[in-house]
Amino acid sequence: MSTAFRRVAVLGLGLIGGSLLQALRQLGSEIVGYDVDSAAAAAASASGYPVAPTDAAAVHGADLVVLAMPLPEVAAAVQSLAPHLSASAVLTDVGTLKQPVLSAVREAAPAATFVGGHPLAGVEETGWNAADPLLFRDAPWALTLEDDTSLDAWLRMAELVCDLGGRPVPTTAADQDAAVGRVIGLPHVLAEALALTGLAGGPLGLSLAAGSYMSGSRVARTPPELVTTWCDGNPALVDALDDAIAHLTGARTALAAGESVFPLARRGHAARTNWERRRFEPVELVPSVEALRALGRAGGWVTAVLRDDDGHRLLGMRPV
Amino acid sequence: MSTAFRRVAVLGLGLIGGSLLQALRQLGSEIVGYDVDSAAAAAASASGYPVAPTDAAAVHGADLVVLAMPLPEVAAAVQSLAPHLSASAVLTDVGTLKQPVLSAVREAAPAATFVGGHPLAGVEETGWNAADPLLFRDAPWALTLEDDTSLDAWLRMAELVCDLGGRPVPTTAADQDAAVGRVIGLPHVLAEALALTGLAGGPLGLSLAAGSYMSGSRVARTPPELVTTWCDGNPALVDALDDAIAHLTGARTALAAGESVFPLARRGHAARTNWERRRFEPVELVPSVEALRALGRAGGWVTAVLRDDDGHRLLGMRPV
Repeated sequence: MSTAFRRVAVLGLGLIGGSLLQALRQLGSEIVGYDVDSAAAAAASASGYPVAPTDAAAVHGADLVVLAMPLPEVAAAVQSLAPHLSASAVLTDVGTLKQPVLSAVREAAPAATFVGGHPLAGVEETGWNAADPLLFRDAPWALTLEDDTSLDAWLRMAELVCDLGGRPVPTTAADQDAAVGRVIGLPHVLAEALALTGLAGGPLGLSLAAGSYMSGSRVARTPPELVTTWCDGNPALVDALDDAIAHLTGARTALAAGESVFPLARRGHAARTNWERRRFEPVELVPSVEALRALGRAGGWVTAVLRDDDGHRLLGMRPV
Repeated sequence: MSTAFRRVAVLGLGLIGGSLLQALRQLGSEIVGYDVDSAAAAAASASGYPVAPTDAAAVHGADLVVLAMPLPEVAAAVQSLAPHLSASAVLTDVGTLKQPVLSAVREAAPAATFVGGHPLAGVEETGWNAADPLLFRDAPWALTLEDDTSLDAWLRMAELVCDLGGRPVPTTAADQDAAVGRVIGLPHVLAEALALTGLAGGPLGLSLAAGSYMSGSRVARTPPELVTTWCDGNPALVDALDDAIAHLTGARTALAAGESVFPLARRGHAARTNWERRRFEPVELVPSVEALRALGRAGGWVTAVLRDDDGHRLLGMRPV
């Protein structure tokens, strides 16, 4: 049972929101869902989950409110629910980009205690029917820590994420969006380009496309409207694309000159295998904004939030 | 039991050669393996597979000889085995690019009855220990049909591929290499560029990299020496890279101007989902070079080679 929050409202019952609602129930939390889309609400309700008729009813009495709707709907959702938020409630979200959500909350609910969140746990399926209460096991989960973020609220969120089996990664909205441009935005744009270019050679190629095409273009199965919300407005993705285009242009020039793609292949192989081979060591720290941000910048995460008479202690993991 | 060939020699016992040796034994074929690398030969032998001490001994009496060594070793291997090849033997290979192999065989064994082959069945693991006798189930398997290819030898190879559970795709070496540039070369080069660029932003990105990075860079796990043999010297890959770079540059320009990646995402999504949704209809044809090539160009493949008193009939599938 999670002791971080007593009653959690999840607004938006798609893949992430639905998975979270299901995972929270498995923790023994009191939960309530809500979705502006009555079909999504009905699907959750038919599966036996409590669904509130309005956002106000969902938020009423909740000490954690989770924004799990698509990014374009976040600003209006925050505006609508803000008057109903308890003074002691924590507000969080699960979106891919953290800066736009932070701006929307600062604008529409400046008094809210907000901790931005991003579970790195999507699959290319969407909707309540794809929801999975085990989706967050071992998933990195960015939790933003700005200068004005409540450290207490951050720690409660970290505790909840640990209870869900995820890995709370302390970061700022700006740093997380920069990283996400490279590890989410870029893979999606490359997958779209591959999906399109790979099959542009005619039907013979369609029948010869196999493993490498299939995995390389897997995330092009994601609805393009969602991909757009993960990519647009992120300047880090422009830089990442510039770097990727430079590598591809280098390989293209080498090939056209009768030379080899080996230099790129060697470096790509090393990057991927070194990533897989990372090893971690346990760390313990007294929580502070600076210590937490340093842990996240180093590639580490929190594994447990311990409360004792002197306050909090954190356990975590950090790359060796 | 496959009736296409009586005794098969597989030269090169890595992932593809090893899988083929194991799959052929499960068909009841008489088999013998060979590898210039004594460690690979010993591994196959220790698993209970017959391994010849020399290529001459392996090839002796075989009515099918399979070249399954890496591309850079093919020319020397053909030169070495050519004097030992039976006059009635069929020679085939399993490499990714078909034109370099065709040239090597024409040079070193001009009298050989050669049918180029390419099972689209790799995984990023390599070597005998990764071999899997079920690797070829439902795998497309390009079989080249040049103007001077023996139609009878081609049909026997198609029969064997069907017996192995694969899908013989009739094509020319030039057409298959053009298609492979887009559906194998391109995904590999993109995966290398993603593996490298995605992780270039520092340790925070390493810990946030998840599903889309993982599938997009999966084939960067392949040894770079192998990737090189699938890419280098294929002019079609230059064209494919030009197209992909143009799509990426378009997305980059849109993002930098505050616009959306949606146009690319929409087209990439449509390409991928239309590919998955292809439907096929059965066809029957009297085999001829032209009819077979037309079937392959249309995205079709052979499902059965039937022999009756009047000669051969072929059953196949073709996109609707």
